[in-house]
Amino acid sequence: MEIIIEGGTVLTMGQEGAIREGAVVIEDDRIIAVGSTRELKPKFRRYERFDARSCIIMPGLINAHQHISMGLLRGYADDYPLKVWLEEHIWPLEAKMTGRDMYVGSLLTCAESLLGGVTTVNTMYHYAHSEWNEARAIAELGMRGVVGHVCFSWRKEEDRRALEDLIRRWHGAADGRVRASVDPHAPYTVDPDYMVELRRLADEYNERYGDKGRITFHIHVAETADEPDKIRDAFGVEVREGVLAYLDSLDVLGPDVVAAHCVALTDRDIAVMAERGVKAVHNPVSNMKLASGISPVVDLLRAGVVVALGTDGPCSNNTADMFETMKVAALLQKVAHGDPTALPARAVLEMATVNGARALCWDDQIGMLEPGMKADIIVVDLKKPHLTPLYSEESHLVYAARSSDVKDVFVDGELVVEDGELKTMDLEDILEMAVKAKEDLISRLEA
Amino acid sequence: MEIIIEGGTVLTMGQEGAIREGAVVIEDDRIIAVGSTRELKPKFRRYERFDARSCIIMPGLINAHQHISMGLLRGYADDYPLKVWLEEHIWPLEAKMTGRDMYVGSLLTCAESLLGGVTTVNTMYHYAHSEWNEARAIAELGMRGVVGHVCFSWRKEEDRRALEDLIRRWHGAADGRVRASVDPHAPYTVDPDYMVELRRLADEYNERYGDKGRITFHIHVAETADEPDKIRDAFGVEVREGVLAYLDSLDVLGPDVVAAHCVALTDRDIAVMAERGVKAVHNPVSNMKLASGISPVVDLLRAGVVVALGTDGPCSNNTADMFETMKVAALLQKVAHGDPTALPARAVLEMATVNGARALCWDDQIGMLEPGMKADIIVVDLKKPHLTPLYSEESHLVYAARSSDVKDVFVDGELVVEDGELKTMDLEDILEMAVKAKEDLISRLEA
Repeated sequence: MEIIIEGGTVLTMGQEGAIREGAVVIEDDRIIAVGSTRELKPKFRRYERFDARSCIIMPGLINAHQHISMGLLRGYADDYPLKVWLEEHIWPLEAKMTGRDMYVGSLLTCAESLLGGVTTVNTMYHYAHSEWNEARAIAELGMRGVVGHVCFSWRKEEDRRALEDLIRRWHGAADGRVRASVDPHAPYTVDPDYMVELRRLADEYNERYGDKGRITFHIHVAETADEPDKIRDAFGVEVREGVLAYLDSLDVLGPDVVAAHCVALTDRDIAVMAERGVKAVHNPVSNMKLASGISPVVDLLRAGVVVALGTDGPCSNNTADMFETMKVAALLQKVAHGDPTALPARAVLEMATVNGARALCWDDQIGMLEPGMKADIIVVDLKKPHLTPLYSEESHLVYAARSSDVKDVFVDGELVVEDGELKTMDLEDILEMAVKAKEDLISRLEA
Repeated sequence: MEIIIEGGTVLTMGQEGAIREGAVVIEDDRIIAVGSTRELKPKFRRYERFDARSCIIMPGLINAHQHISMGLLRGYADDYPLKVWLEEHIWPLEAKMTGRDMYVGSLLTCAESLLGGVTTVNTMYHYAHSEWNEARAIAELGMRGVVGHVCFSWRKEEDRRALEDLIRRWHGAADGRVRASVDPHAPYTVDPDYMVELRRLADEYNERYGDKGRITFHIHVAETADEPDKIRDAFGVEVREGVLAYLDSLDVLGPDVVAAHCVALTDRDIAVMAERGVKAVHNPVSNMKLASGISPVVDLLRAGVVVALGTDGPCSNNTADMFETMKVAALLQKVAHGDPTALPARAVLEMATVNGARALCWDDQIGMLEPGMKADIIVVDLKKPHLTPLYSEESHLVYAARSSDVKDVFVDGELVVEDGELKTMDLEDILEMAVKAKEDLISRLEA
């Protein structure tokens, strides 16, 4: 594929500001040039022209914390207390889910994601089946993603088998669009010894398979303030200085650790994260919906921690909408700090692109539009009443644009969404599969 | 027009729950029947059929606090401190706006609103021109709205003339779709004597023109915590018990008072609002973006105060998206109270429909789907990956649906949006007018 996407405003996210009447040139899966349309058009005049006038051309968004399998469960039980929600509703239903349910739920979430401009997703769930799983859905839809298997102390043997299978089969699959990760669920469900074992396992896997990309270490951390109590109750360990400080005492932290949530942090935690290069993923919509609290995002950024953005799963958000998440992230820090200048639009856009790529240790290939990078590109249509007139692209993207304004999406140089339509699978088929799978799931629950 | 909208799930908002495979029958501007499709179809078989299968049929949303004229200014200056934002950016630009700029800005905001399922808007701005104004935009687009003129102590004569003209020309206009209101800007910009005068004026206008609908009293109240200080600095009045309590001491409160924001309230304020029947309008996105604070919505509702929902204007939000506002309202109360059950989906839907109608003293005609009410109806398409499968319509509408899922919109029995397309004006024309008006405005500013 040789394409020149031209005429739009290019936000490379690699440099400040925007290139008005810009163009991005793609050859196969790579970007080979970025610049003004006037300058690039004559050089690449034999390339297929892709009209992006009145549009913004920018890197695909990176959703750095998801549970894509849960697409079938969205809206099943909202507005309940956390314990009731999990124990009486979500867990019993999850216990009835098959590998194929996870695959179908993943198709739903990935279709929604791609249509909304998300080109890469970092997802944590049970890897329950070699074929029917999240990785397959990502691969088939032409998306990019990191797929983990979530590990718990109560099923170590199962976890070890699942990780081995996941990494051997899927790490580096689909032309390198799929990568695998080792995912300890959380510090209160993974005992200290097992946490150390998983760290060692991740290191070993990286030695064996690291040539296909870094295998990351994805974990929920400090989602709620009672996490130290839960760790003490579960393992008899006193966590005095913070949950990250505790993990550091186990010597498991490093720049490949993707720490989701990071709500209830101590100052020591923030210092540890900066020191070890741990990445944070902020999930503002989920943190608000579940009443978990407000992550100290401004403090993390000030300390030099890379903070990415995520939606969290379809049950705790309930969308995969990164435009919504960008806006809510900005709003939440402003009201929390009593400061309308807190977390400005540019910082939020960086969280959703370059920081997401850095969090997944994939920033050598994605997160910005520069020659040599993978062609993961979205085209956002500005010809809308809520995006007209235009003063600042960055302000419009964060405060006014919607996921439904995404017109076209390229992943790895392939056009996977064209003019708002999914190209890689029939959307109607996915919806039909989902309705049927949900009916079967509920009937199994009620049986 | 004789139409039967059939096959969808009807949320009447007048009664709990939903009517699956329901129908709503319209004759001219009114709803004449609501029930199951099976029951209504034979009775109204000569009526034009409108297919709403796989959709939700519900009352149009009511945006109870807006400044629709500011459509041209969206995104002009974000992420600034409040004082710099207003004094150095917004006010100088507003000073250059003509009546026609306000009309064009209003067209933009109303087009966005209708496309997003908002059928009624309550808007406060300068009524600067008899013909080129907000009322005209609302009338021409087939929308419903309450249009005010915002009053300040520094321009009493101008205000009196504007109010007289606004109410005589526009109250009851467009088949009753447009109503007028008296809008003191805020307790710190309208001195006590003038506040009392405006209250008396509103009462007099209601005696003269009240047969065309109640003329409401729309005011910003307690948007920020420093409002008592601002009142003291401006008028030498000590506000000790709260801003609503202060207004009550002037004897200006009543059930026609629409109090926007209500962020910094005392317990006494809440008691006063309940006692006088004052309506609150919650604007969560604006309150977060401008870092104003968090309104005690749960406490207001518990005290029996009618709380409606608004987006606020295009500069402080920056959208007219009531779906976004519904979700953010729910999220914000949950995180503020540390309680995931706070402000559940149903309560938020009531705020955006029935409570909005009550706030505008228009609940005899709009806000729910019942025989005899005006046919202000929206059809929300559920055939989307983020709305499939379905467990609860209410949860989906608040936590997962987007304004772009609105398929069709009826106002006063007229189909104003069909399959996502604006029918009452050419959207391209509006966008072109907006681009041109913005360029002219900026060149006048720079001249």
